[in-house]
Amino acid sequence: MLGKTYDTEVCSAARTLELVGERWSLLIIRNALFAGATRFSDFTSLAISTNILANRLDALVAADIMERRDSQYLLTAKGKELAAVIIALTEWGDRWVATEGRPILYTHTCGGEISQQTSCVNCGEIHDFDDVLALPGPGMPADRAARMGHVAG
Amino acid sequence: MLGKTYDTEVCSAARTLELVGERWSLLIIRNALFAGATRFSDFTSLAISTNILANRLDALVAADIMERRDSQYLLTAKGKELAAVIIALTEWGDRWVATEGRPILYTHTCGGEISQQTSCVNCGEIHDFDDVLALPGPGMPADRAARMGHVAG
Repeated sequence: MLGKTYDTEVCSAARTLELVGERWSLLIIRNALFAGATRFSDFTSLAISTNILANRLDALVAADIMERRDSQYLLTAKGKELAAVIIALTEWGDRWVATEGRPILYTHTCGGEISQQTSCVNCGEIHDFDDVLALPGPGMPADRAARMGHVAG
Repeated sequence: MLGKTYDTEVCSAARTLELVGERWSLLIIRNALFAGATRFSDFTSLAISTNILANRLDALVAADIMERRDSQYLLTAKGKELAAVIIALTEWGDRWVATEGRPILYTHTCGGEISQQTSCVNCGEIHDFDDVLALPGPGMPADRAARMGHVAG
């Protein structure tokens, strides 16, 4: 179903991209999350051929990101949490490529605007990513961890 | 250089994926951000053919995400801010697909662990993305905004 492109990678970002990194997958999830799309015909508003759309929806169901119920494709809890990825992509795009202003404002039902922060448990919000290190965690095989040249703190 | 896959999309997430949605692009940026990769040979640790690697690096330079200085590929400020996207992908993967534990712990230089929060300016941290709406912003053409059926608050 899904290609194992990043087979040699021991990295959760790569594992995520293995499931949602195909063209259109994240925009299908965006439309399910934020445009109320549930039926196959709802997703055809995307400029994508129907055979690719069917392939992507099947892959999302296989990955437990969506479930098919009658003729609807519904996000699972796992799928809904991809909202954080879509908002991260949106914030970067708003900042760097939205030359005509932000096209979409993600907004809480209370009316407040949504934003994302990256923070350190000790220091609070992080602005300089040069101060962030990638240290091997418990899921990193020992031989690879050794080659990373860091010791987890 | 880069395909205009999402031409019909007026969406900052789609615009971002137009620049970094090709296979391997985000992992190249990850290695530049967190593994100290700067030279072409550094990036060949990825399981990718050298012609695709060269193509991806050229595209990242064309998109002003990297700059080439002598024989080094260095992230620009625009490129460094993609750390937030990589951390969002990682957190989702850690939670849903890291069956053997988290392989990488993103850690601040002070020793504190890094995490991401999505929050509402009024309510604080958001846990239920069902309560987030996508409303048209100033960059959304009026005809499309009308079809979205919402009025920006």
